[in-house]
Amino acid sequence: MPTAPDGVSGTRFGAQDRASLYGVLQERRDMRHFVPGQTVPDAVLARVLHAAHCAPSVGLMQPWRLIRVRDAALREGIAQLVEQERLATAAAMQERSAEFLALKVEGVRDCAELLVAVLAPDDGTLFGRRTMPRDMALCSAACAVQNLWLAARAENLGLGWVSLFEPAALGQLLQLPEGAQAIAVLCLGPVPAFYPKPMLELQDWRHGRPLEEMVATDRWPG
Amino acid sequence: MPTAPDGVSGTRFGAQDRASLYGVLQERRDMRHFVPGQTVPDAVLARVLHAAHCAPSVGLMQPWRLIRVRDAALREGIAQLVEQERLATAAAMQERSAEFLALKVEGVRDCAELLVAVLAPDDGTLFGRRTMPRDMALCSAACAVQNLWLAARAENLGLGWVSLFEPAALGQLLQLPEGAQAIAVLCLGPVPAFYPKPMLELQDWRHGRPLEEMVATDRWPG
Repeated sequence: MPTAPDGVSGTRFGAQDRASLYGVLQERRDMRHFVPGQTVPDAVLARVLHAAHCAPSVGLMQPWRLIRVRDAALREGIAQLVEQERLATAAAMQERSAEFLALKVEGVRDCAELLVAVLAPDDGTLFGRRTMPRDMALCSAACAVQNLWLAARAENLGLGWVSLFEPAALGQLLQLPEGAQAIAVLCLGPVPAFYPKPMLELQDWRHGRPLEEMVATDRWPG
Repeated sequence: MPTAPDGVSGTRFGAQDRASLYGVLQERRDMRHFVPGQTVPDAVLARVLHAAHCAPSVGLMQPWRLIRVRDAALREGIAQLVEQERLATAAAMQERSAEFLALKVEGVRDCAELLVAVLAPDDGTLFGRRTMPRDMALCSAACAVQNLWLAARAENLGLGWVSLFEPAALGQLLQLPEGAQAIAVLCLGPVPAFYPKPMLELQDWRHGRPLEEMVATDRWPG
């Protein structure tokens, strides 16, 4: 629990807070296996949505929108779009196609709650985005998803960011306005177990590179 | 502190962990005021960099790169690019130009540590990004920055994401390879105080909208 302020405005966090945060960061996983037939309590869902809304945004534009999918036909429509894209990706992968098809890459039908994160249409904000308008809005929306993800993990719920879809088709299904773009189908809910490592590592699909290769002083790292 | 696993693989986080995480999420601020002449201990810097590297990434591509700026001339060059863009933004703002120029929008010269976050050149990863290749890589890099930001706040250090720069000019200054793009100049270090609200709200530049306007069930929130 955060301790009281200590001389400066704002909470002074302690070692226990950091252990909790670092634990959540390290054990957050991109989950694709969910326990079917579960629900997420309203209070928990409210907390994870609030976490998303705590995200930073360029010029305070808050370009994230979240659609909670409750309609069964809508969920099924999303599942079918994801399946189409899974097959299209497999076809594009050529020699790793069969290996890709053997992976479980989404939990759209099984997860307790399905959310779609959408990048809102550009509202014309100039602050901090004169040179990179779309990139900075997109980064803000991604930060909101990451906040939601961390909150979900702290609530012992799994979350999977599914990006296997054609954004135009999903936009049409969700009747998004012009200029809005779905960026994530988010599967949220209880999981049988959290992967001890990223699933793509567990399945020997790909292995992560160490931090040391990503950082350098005064020059490009690689 | 996270408790031991409880029946499932992976830590089962408790109420105290959630209070810590939610505290950090809520009190993270985009800081522009730093205490000059400070340093960040190596161990702390290592922890926040590690936090960034815990981020999710599409297809495990880990497209983030971080340049730690230690060279004084390089820092000064970045400060000048940011100042150029601040003036260009002010000019583009027309009627709010003077109000914008009165805001403190960066702490590049004052912060203890200056980092530049870079989106790596496309490595051809297909997994999860056949339809949105650049967007999904960018979202992954943004998640890494958000992780770093949360870690910094838990370490009681301020962080400011400065996006006031021409990416081509900054890329040239940093000698980035073809296809790489700087997305954030990150000012990190001790601050005199954390803003109790986003600085843009404190300064009446803009006020955030409530979560309720960002979420809807089975439809666009409006």
